[in-house]
Amino acid sequence: MKWKRTHTCGELTGKQKSQTAILMGWVDRRRDHGGLIFIDLRDRYGVTQIQINPASAAYEEAKKLRNEYVVAFKGIVEGRPEGMTNVKLKTGEIELIANEIEILNTSETPPIPISGDINASEDLRLKYRYLDLRRPDMQKNMFIRHKAAQIVRNYLDENKFLEIETPYLMKSTPEGARDFLVPSRVWKGKFYALPQSPQQYKQLLMVSGYDRYFQIVRCFRDEDLRADRQPEFTQIDMELSFIDEEDIFKIMEGLIARVMKEILGITIPSPIQRIPYKTAMEKYGIDRPDLRFGMEINNISSLVEHCEFNVFSQTVKAGHVVAGICVPGGGKFSRKQIDDLTSWTKEQGAKGLVAIKVKGDDWDSTLDKFFSDEQRKQIVKTCSAQDGDLLLFVADVKKVALPLLGDLRLKIAREQNMIPADTYKLAWVVDFPLFEYSAEEGRWVACHHPFTSPIPADEHKLLTDPEHVTARAYDLVLNGMEIAGGSIRIANAELQAQMFTALGISDQEAQSKFGFLMEAFKYGAPPHGGIAFGFDRMIMILAGCSSIRDVIAFPKTATASSLMDGSPSTVKSEQLLELGLRLYEGI
Amino acid sequence: MKWKRTHTCGELTGKQKSQTAILMGWVDRRRDHGGLIFIDLRDRYGVTQIQINPASAAYEEAKKLRNEYVVAFKGIVEGRPEGMTNVKLKTGEIELIANEIEILNTSETPPIPISGDINASEDLRLKYRYLDLRRPDMQKNMFIRHKAAQIVRNYLDENKFLEIETPYLMKSTPEGARDFLVPSRVWKGKFYALPQSPQQYKQLLMVSGYDRYFQIVRCFRDEDLRADRQPEFTQIDMELSFIDEEDIFKIMEGLIARVMKEILGITIPSPIQRIPYKTAMEKYGIDRPDLRFGMEINNISSLVEHCEFNVFSQTVKAGHVVAGICVPGGGKFSRKQIDDLTSWTKEQGAKGLVAIKVKGDDWDSTLDKFFSDEQRKQIVKTCSAQDGDLLLFVADVKKVALPLLGDLRLKIAREQNMIPADTYKLAWVVDFPLFEYSAEEGRWVACHHPFTSPIPADEHKLLTDPEHVTARAYDLVLNGMEIAGGSIRIANAELQAQMFTALGISDQEAQSKFGFLMEAFKYGAPPHGGIAFGFDRMIMILAGCSSIRDVIAFPKTATASSLMDGSPSTVKSEQLLELGLRLYEGI
Repeated sequence: MKWKRTHTCGELTGKQKSQTAILMGWVDRRRDHGGLIFIDLRDRYGVTQIQINPASAAYEEAKKLRNEYVVAFKGIVEGRPEGMTNVKLKTGEIELIANEIEILNTSETPPIPISGDINASEDLRLKYRYLDLRRPDMQKNMFIRHKAAQIVRNYLDENKFLEIETPYLMKSTPEGARDFLVPSRVWKGKFYALPQSPQQYKQLLMVSGYDRYFQIVRCFRDEDLRADRQPEFTQIDMELSFIDEEDIFKIMEGLIARVMKEILGITIPSPIQRIPYKTAMEKYGIDRPDLRFGMEINNISSLVEHCEFNVFSQTVKAGHVVAGICVPGGGKFSRKQIDDLTSWTKEQGAKGLVAIKVKGDDWDSTLDKFFSDEQRKQIVKTCSAQDGDLLLFVADVKKVALPLLGDLRLKIAREQNMIPADTYKLAWVVDFPLFEYSAEEGRWVACHHPFTSPIPADEHKLLTDPEHVTARAYDLVLNGMEIAGGSIRIANAELQAQMFTALGISDQEAQSKFGFLMEAFKYGAPPHGGIAFGFDRMIMILAGCSSIRDVIAFPKTATASSLMDGSPSTVKSEQLLELGLRLYEGI
Repeated sequence: MKWKRTHTCGELTGKQKSQTAILMGWVDRRRDHGGLIFIDLRDRYGVTQIQINPASAAYEEAKKLRNEYVVAFKGIVEGRPEGMTNVKLKTGEIELIANEIEILNTSETPPIPISGDINASEDLRLKYRYLDLRRPDMQKNMFIRHKAAQIVRNYLDENKFLEIETPYLMKSTPEGARDFLVPSRVWKGKFYALPQSPQQYKQLLMVSGYDRYFQIVRCFRDEDLRADRQPEFTQIDMELSFIDEEDIFKIMEGLIARVMKEILGITIPSPIQRIPYKTAMEKYGIDRPDLRFGMEINNISSLVEHCEFNVFSQTVKAGHVVAGICVPGGGKFSRKQIDDLTSWTKEQGAKGLVAIKVKGDDWDSTLDKFFSDEQRKQIVKTCSAQDGDLLLFVADVKKVALPLLGDLRLKIAREQNMIPADTYKLAWVVDFPLFEYSAEEGRWVACHHPFTSPIPADEHKLLTDPEHVTARAYDLVLNGMEIAGGSIRIANAELQAQMFTALGISDQEAQSKFGFLMEAFKYGAPPHGGIAFGFDRMIMILAGCSSIRDVIAFPKTATASSLMDGSPSTVKSEQLLELGLRLYEGI
C-alpha cells in the first residue's frame, strides 16, 4: 500500500468538498461513459462514486479494473453535477475525482453475484461463503448481530451480571440430545464432551456466590438435523440468585426492550403479557403462540355434546374435544381450497375437517339440519364468526385436535397473508408441566430439564402424581418462536434427588453424571434460577430473515457439513492412533 | 423465599440508618457475645454485620446458624456503637439489627476455608472449585476478568470492529500443535477439529470486506501440557484491513492503555517502546524481555578475543560469544551462592560460568592475571559495573550463551527480589525472522504461522535465503510475558503458494488443508493483518496472580483433567458405536 486510507466509502458528503481523500475498497461496478470511467467503490461502510477522466494519471490503470478488484484511489472530493446526485446514498452528493490509483489486488469473476439480488443456490453460497458474506444483505445481518451482542452485554453489565467463561471441554452427561465427544490423547480411551449448555456450571456459579452470571456462549448438540438447527449454536446464558420469576421477567423485559428499541426502533409494551401453558395449548394449539394475528381456537365441545351430528356428539361423549377456528373472509374459499385443507388435515393424522361457511348470522352448510337454531347461533357466537367467514372444526382426542388446529391456524395465516409485516408480538408462556410421559422411553421425562423446580404446592406430588406437577418454568415467545426459556432451579440436594427418582435416573447414574452438582448443593446453595436466549433465532427475527444460516457467518448445512472447508473430513491414521482409537470395521 | 432482597451485603452505610432492610447471603462468621449473636453475612458485593439479640424473633433460629448457611435477615439498619466501627469495610459504620430470619439453605463444613488465607492444596481447591470460587480472592479475579472483557469489547466497538462468531467445529489442519478432534456421527469415519485459533476464518472475513473483526474466543490445543498451559484458552482475536503495522500498534496501544487505566488506574507511556527481535535476544537473551529491571546482557567478545584467558579467547576465535550480566551488589554473594549458580548454568547446558567480583574499579578475582589492566577496565565499563557488583560470564555458541544468560538474569532477579512490585513494562518486539530451522523436522518452519507476510524487501529471498527473511510480525510483551502477537498477512495467492513451498508443504497438502483460503484470495483480498491477545495471561498479570488457573473459573489440571467433574471420562460403548469408533485394543 502506497497510502493510508483517509475515509471509508460511506463517509464523504458535501462537507468534504474540495478536500483530498484516499479511499480503498472493492470495485462494485464500472461504467465507461463519454471517455470517463466511473467506479462505484464499495466497502463495509458504503459506496462512493469515483470519476477518472482521461487526463488523470490513474486513467490507464483504471481501464484494467474489473468487478471485485481491490483498489485505492487518491483524489479530490467534488459535488456531483446538477441532476446527478443520488439521494438514496449517503455519499450521493459527491464523487471523488481520482488523480492517482493503486490496484491492491485483482479478482477473478466471482461465482455468485455480490451486488443486487442473489439468485445463486444456497449450496453455492455456502461453498463461497466468503463471497456471500461480502453481499450487503449479509453484512447488514452480521452488523445487527454484532450490535445486539454489544447491547446485551452492556445491559447485563449495568444490571450487575458478571460474564464468566465456562469450559467447552466438559464431562459427557447424556440427557436428552446427544453430546459431541472429544477424545483425550493424554487419557487414552477417555473423552470430553462439548457442552449442550453450561447449565451445571452456571448453577455452580450461583453456589459460588456470583449472584448474577451471563455468557454469550456456543452450545453443541449432535442432533438429527432439522432445517433450522445447527450442530453449534449460540445462547445468551444467564443465571441469578435470590430471585423469583418476577425478577427474571422484569430484567429480561428490560433486555428485550433495549434490544428491540436500539435495533428496530420499536418500543414494546410493558409488561409483556403472560399466557399459561394450558391456555396457549387451548387457544393456539402450541406452546409458542404467534400473536400477530387472531384466529384463536374455540372449543365448542359443550355446545355440541347433545347435537344430532354424531361425529361431534360421539367425540364429546367419548371425553374428547370438538374445536375449531374461524377464518375471516374464508367464505370465499373454493371447494378445492377446502378439499385441500381437508386432505392436509387427514395427512396430519386427524379423522377429518368440518368446514362451515357463515352467511349472515347463520350457516351456509348442509350440516345445518343436525343442529338446532340455538346451537348454530351459540357456535357462531363462540367463534365470533361473521358473515363471509369460514368455520373449520376438528373432532378428535385433545392431543391431536388442538395441535392440529394450531398448525392449521398457522398454515392458513401464512397462505392468506394474514401475518402483518414488521410486527413483533411477545409473550411469556408460564405454568408449564414439570414432566411429560415418553412412551418411547417408558418413563416420565423433564419437559424443561431435570434441574427445574416444581412449584412449592406441587412438591409432594413429584413421585405420586407427576403428571399434575407444575414447573417454575417460562418461555419467552416472539412471533410464534421460542426465543428464550428458563426456570427457577432446585437448590436443594434432597429435592434434586427426588427429581432424579421421578425421572427414573438411578442414584448411581445421578451420582456419576451430576454428582458434583449434588455435592455442591450440600454447601449452601442459594435460591436461584435462570434463562437462556437462542441468540441465532433472536437475530434471525431482528434481521427479518427466514433462516438462521443467514445470521451465522459460517454455518453448517442441514447435514452438519461445511461446504466451504469440507469438514468434517478424514484424518490421518496416526492422529487416531495417538488417540487410542480406530475406525469400526466395515464402515 | 419469604421476602425480596432490598440491598446487597456491600451496600448499606450510615445513609440508610433506621431503615428496614432485607439482606441475603452466606454466614461468613458467627460470634456469640454477651447473649448477642453477631453474624458476618457475605455475598459477592461485601460483608454486613447482623446483630440478633435474645429478644428478637430471629434468635432461636439464629442459634442454629453455622458457617456457609444461606440466610435472609430482615431488620433495621443502625449505626454501630462508638468505637465499634470498622473503617476497612464499606459497611463498617452500620449493622443490621435483625427482627426476622429465614434460613434458605444449610451447609456442611466446607472442605476448604472460604475466608482468610487459603492453605488447601490446589488439587483440593480444584475438586471443590465451586467453594474455591466463593473465596473473595477468586471473586476479585473473576470480576477483573469480566470488567476487562467489557472494556475490550466497548473499545473495539468504538473503533468500528465487528464481533463475528466463527465455528468451533472446523476442518482439521494440523500445523504445529495438535488439533482436538470431534468425531462426526452423521458422517461416520470423519472428524471435525476444534480451532487452535480462528486464523483462517478471520482472514476470510477480511476477504469478505468486514474491515475490522474481533472476537473473544476459546481456542484449543492438544499440547503436552506445561504448568501454565490449558487445553482450552481464551484469545482476544482481531483482524483489520487496509492497515499496516503502525495502525495496529496505535489501536492496540489504545486498547491496552484503556484496560490498564480502568483496571489498575495506571497510565502507560505512549508510544510503547519497540525492540527489534535481534536486540531483544542480544540484550535479554529472550524475545519477551522483562523490562522491570536492568541487568542486561553485555557482549564482551571483541574485548576478550586477544586476552590470555583461553576459555574466552578460544570461544571468540571459534566464532562464538563471550557475554555476561552484571549483578548489582552481587559482590556480597557467598562462595556457595556462586557455586550454585555455576552448577545451575551447567545443568542448563553451558560449559561453565565465570564469576568476577568488582572491587573499586578493578576485579577481585584470581582471573585478573589473564587480562590486561585495559581489558579489565573496558570490561567493567562495558558492563557498567560498579564497586560491589558481580560479573557473570558465559562463553559458548551464541544460541546457548544468550538464552542462558537471559534465564540467569531472570533467576537472579527473582531470587534477589530485584523485580519491583506493581510495575508494568510494555514493549513491542518487532522484526522477527519469518522462518526458523527445525532440526527435528528437517525443514524451515514458520516462526509465527504460514500466513505471515515477509517484508517486501525480502520477498525474493523466500526460497533462496529463508534464514534472512524478516517477517512483518510483532509481539506485545508485558513484564516478560508475551500477551499478544500478530502479523501483517500475505494477501496474495502466489506469495502464499511460495510460502508453502518454502515451508516444504506440498501443493497437494496446501490444497487439502488451506485450499479454500487460497481460493478466496483469488477474489480480491485486501491488504490485512491482525493480532491476538492471550486473555488468560493478560488477566493473570492484571490480577497479580502467578497462575492462569487462578483467573479461569473452571480450569483443567496440568494433565488436562478436571478434578471437579472427573472429565475426561469413559463413555458408553453405544456412544462410540454410534460414532463408528472403537477403542484401540490393548489400551
